[in-house]
Amino acid sequence: MTAAAGRLTGVGVGPGDPDLLTVRATRIIAVADVIAYHCARHGRSIARAAAAPYLRDGQAEEILRYPVTTEGTEHPGGYAAVMAEFYEEAAERLAAHLESGRDVVVLCEGDPAFYGSYQHLHTRLSGRFTASIVPGISSVSAAAAAAGVPLVQHDETLTILPGTLSGDELRARLAGTDAAAVLKLGRTFETVRSAVEDAGLLARARYVERAGTGAQRVEALADVDPATVPYMSLVLVPGHGRRGGLGERVHEASAPAWPGGQACGVTVVGLGPGDPAWLAA
Amino acid sequence: MTAAAGRLTGVGVGPGDPDLLTVRATRIIAVADVIAYHCARHGRSIARAAAAPYLRDGQAEEILRYPVTTEGTEHPGGYAAVMAEFYEEAAERLAAHLESGRDVVVLCEGDPAFYGSYQHLHTRLSGRFTASIVPGISSVSAAAAAAGVPLVQHDETLTILPGTLSGDELRARLAGTDAAAVLKLGRTFETVRSAVEDAGLLARARYVERAGTGAQRVEALADVDPATVPYMSLVLVPGHGRRGGLGERVHEASAPAWPGGQACGVTVVGLGPGDPAWLAA
Repeated sequence: MTAAAGRLTGVGVGPGDPDLLTVRATRIIAVADVIAYHCARHGRSIARAAAAPYLRDGQAEEILRYPVTTEGTEHPGGYAAVMAEFYEEAAERLAAHLESGRDVVVLCEGDPAFYGSYQHLHTRLSGRFTASIVPGISSVSAAAAAAGVPLVQHDETLTILPGTLSGDELRARLAGTDAAAVLKLGRTFETVRSAVEDAGLLARARYVERAGTGAQRVEALADVDPATVPYMSLVLVPGHGRRGGLGERVHEASAPAWPGGQACGVTVVGLGPGDPAWLAA
Repeated sequence: MTAAAGRLTGVGVGPGDPDLLTVRATRIIAVADVIAYHCARHGRSIARAAAAPYLRDGQAEEILRYPVTTEGTEHPGGYAAVMAEFYEEAAERLAAHLESGRDVVVLCEGDPAFYGSYQHLHTRLSGRFTASIVPGISSVSAAAAAAGVPLVQHDETLTILPGTLSGDELRARLAGTDAAAVLKLGRTFETVRSAVEDAGLLARARYVERAGTGAQRVEALADVDPATVPYMSLVLVPGHGRRGGLGERVHEASAPAWPGGQACGVTVVGLGPGDPAWLAA
């Protein structure tokens, strides 16, 4: 590591609305020398748009444009080799800035820890340079807020699943959890919806599109037209409010309806002598 | 709903550092008439401390103090009845403000959708008043950023578990997921650690205490002294970077080490003709 080298920071910018960046993210973006972000070959960067109000004149921008799209690739090593070369080349572009003493921010949609591309750069560069991560509002948090649903309560488990899994795996994992979020929809939508239905969860499943942006849409999953589903959408299956061991669920017939639609057993039942902090995590 | 009634907003304030509130959260806090927050009987409010820089003179504060602690209760209905009465009474205190046209913000540590107490108030009040939720940085996102680990990549599943589950259930769920976060430690710590070890995951499990605060601590789970573990801590088991169906994992012997310690197979392998956006969720 060079003494005068710049610092690398992966900054989660949340789901898209500039209001949903953290204060720390806005400050680090404002003082960076170089702003980098991933971009689809023919697309715009949602992360760049979310960060736009905090950028300054004179900042360099590095657009890390994905080399392949759904058309596939002619590369003899296939998709894997293309992407490996892409991340190597992107890391070297950022390394050149860092070696010259310039601080580099990589803008990441959502939270970098949740399926973020920044981790490919962090892994390649954090041994050579000071590198850190600023967490962001994940798409799951944004969607739950948009839907107004209590995603997990009490002793519930939450499973986060990519829609790219097989229908069989989705069905098995959905059937075995209290609450779930399924990301990466788009062309996986019909598989995901069938798996939710087969797991007996369609009635309480919510669909949230572009949560935390101006184009946000919230619907019952059962009502969604598959033809209208973009990649930036997810399915939420809120928990029921269980207390106790595996499979045991507590309901209250008189529980008020959560605006999301399903009734939630919100009264604390059967914890025994308890620490109220257990309710407030 | 009264025409001139105030608005209720549950605001996620993140893990504790004032820098980790969203811009939206800071704005809504600044203009609220009433600031409410939960508080343990003998404790301070982490949420209040995180929001402190954004409070204004003249704002009323409503402290919603949990009625019982680990000592238990003398109430004939037990803990459940005590907590139900508490939430009813808290909701009525906030309703009085809302009916008088005062906007009320309830400060929530982390993200309200993740085991948050605000949902008990939202459920009771959203039918009578305009109520909304501002998402926050969850403890899981903050901990992953602090540890510098890629929590989930590619087609991996993430399971979020409360440490209050039985050892058997923890072990089974940990063994069946790619990546995990176990919350609500403290006195559950030894059960959680044993379950992680029994599931064969101790070597890559990280312990993160008070992530996103000045008192943050990150350690290998194997090195943690159980006597030192507070409630505000969690265990992360990062994924390996799998691609493909259930149980199939892809590793790269030459993958650089992530600073968190474990080697991560970060090269994209075997997706076939793919949409690069699948890497950028």
